[in-house]
Amino acid sequence: MQLRLYDLAGADANRRFSPYCWRIRMALAHKDLPVETIPWRFTEKDAIAASGQPRVPVLVDGEKWLADSWTIANYLENTYADRPPLFGGEAGRGLSFFYSNVADTLVGTIFPLIALDIYQNIDEKDRGYFRASREERVGTTLEKLVADRDSRVTAVRQTFAALRLTLKEQPFFGGERPLYADYAIFGPFQWARCISAFALLAADDPIRSWRERMLNLFGGLARSSPGYDT
Amino acid sequence: MQLRLYDLAGADANRRFSPYCWRIRMALAHKDLPVETIPWRFTEKDAIAASGQPRVPVLVDGEKWLADSWTIANYLENTYADRPPLFGGEAGRGLSFFYSNVADTLVGTIFPLIALDIYQNIDEKDRGYFRASREERVGTTLEKLVADRDSRVTAVRQTFAALRLTLKEQPFFGGERPLYADYAIFGPFQWARCISAFALLAADDPIRSWRERMLNLFGGLARSSPGYDT
Repeated sequence: MQLRLYDLAGADANRRFSPYCWRIRMALAHKDLPVETIPWRFTEKDAIAASGQPRVPVLVDGEKWLADSWTIANYLENTYADRPPLFGGEAGRGLSFFYSNVADTLVGTIFPLIALDIYQNIDEKDRGYFRASREERVGTTLEKLVADRDSRVTAVRQTFAALRLTLKEQPFFGGERPLYADYAIFGPFQWARCISAFALLAADDPIRSWRERMLNLFGGLARSSPGYDT
Repeated sequence: MQLRLYDLAGADANRRFSPYCWRIRMALAHKDLPVETIPWRFTEKDAIAASGQPRVPVLVDGEKWLADSWTIANYLENTYADRPPLFGGEAGRGLSFFYSNVADTLVGTIFPLIALDIYQNIDEKDRGYFRASREERVGTTLEKLVADRDSRVTAVRQTFAALRLTLKEQPFFGGERPLYADYAIFGPFQWARCISAFALLAADDPIRSWRERMLNLFGGLARSSPGYDT
C-alpha cells in the first residue's frame, strides 16, 4: 500500500515549503520509497486529526498515522531496514539526533528573515491564522520582524559557522554520501529557498554549494517545488 | 613505545584546561591507550617545534609528531583500529566532524565569560603572551570582556539549545554510549570547568548532567584536573 505524506503547501499547491516535511521527503527518497504527497494547509487540522496532533509532516503507512519528523525517520529506518540506512548504523542514529535539533534551532534563527515572505506565499485561507499565531509568538508584527533583515543577515550567517567549516572539508555531513543528518539540516535551507527570494546565503558560501548538491539528489527532487535560487 | 601528549597546564601543573587536549585525553582513554601527559605552557613553543606548528594537543607516537585534535583523532582511529571505535564506523566519522566544528565555535562563545579566569590561573610566564594575543584578537581588555558576564550568560546558554534538546532525550551524543562527538563537545565545557568558578551551566541543565556522566568516565579521568564544580 502506497505511503501518503501530508505536506505543507502554499497558495500554489506545488510550493512545498515545510522544513520538517522536506526532511521526510528526502528520507523517503533515500530509502527509495514511493510516496503520494498531499498538499496541506495550516488550517486543515481536521485532515490530520487521526495523527493525534496538529502539525505536519504526517505519514500514513497502511493503518498507521505517524507525526514528528524524528519519529517518522526512526519508523522508516526500523520498518524498512532492508533499504539504504538513513543514519549510518546504530551509532549514527545517536549522532543524527543532534542534527535534527540543530535543524530545529535553525528554523528559529531563519524565521525572522523570511516571516513576511511566508505570509505572502501561503494560501489566503491560512493568512489570518499564520499572522495571529506567529505575531503572538514573536511579540511583534511580521512587517517589523523582517524590517532590518539586510543588516541582520550577517550575524545570522555567522551562526552557521560550524555548518560551514564542516562543508568546506567534506561534501556532506554524512561524509562522502548524504545521510539523514543532511536531510535534517537541508530542511530549513530548503524552506527558506522555497518561500523567500531573500539571499540567506552568500554566493560563495560552502553551505550554498552543499545546498546545490542536495537539490541535485534523487533526480532533482527538491527542485520540484517552486523556489528562489538566491 | 608509550604515547606522549603535550597538554596545556596552568600555574598548577595539574590544572589541565585545553578544550582541544581534553578531546584527545578522552579519545585515548576510550581506546584504552595509556599516555604520558607532559604539562605544557603557552610560551613553550620550542618543546613542540617538531610538530611543525605552535599549538597543543601534540601527540608523539614513536617517530611521529601529530598536531590538531581532528587529525589526531583520525590517526588514533586508523592506527589503533582493533580498539573500540571512536566514531561509530565510517558514516560516524563523517557525522563526527561537525561536532568537532561545533566544539570549536563553543570555545569562541564561552571565551568572553572566562577569559580573565584563564589569565589568573595560567603560569606567570604565560601571562604577558596570553593577555597581549587575546586582547588583540577581541579588541578589548580581558577585564572589560568579562565585565557584564552575569547579564550575558543567559544569552550564551540559549546558544546551547540544540545540545540541550539532544541530552534531554539520550545520555550521550553517541546515543547510549559516548563517542568522539561527546569528547569534542565536552572539551569546551571541561575547559570552563577547569579554569573558572563562573557558573556557565544552570544547575538543572541537562548539559550539566551529561557533563557529570562525562566526568565519571574512565575512572573519573576528567576529574583528575583541579576544577570548579559550579
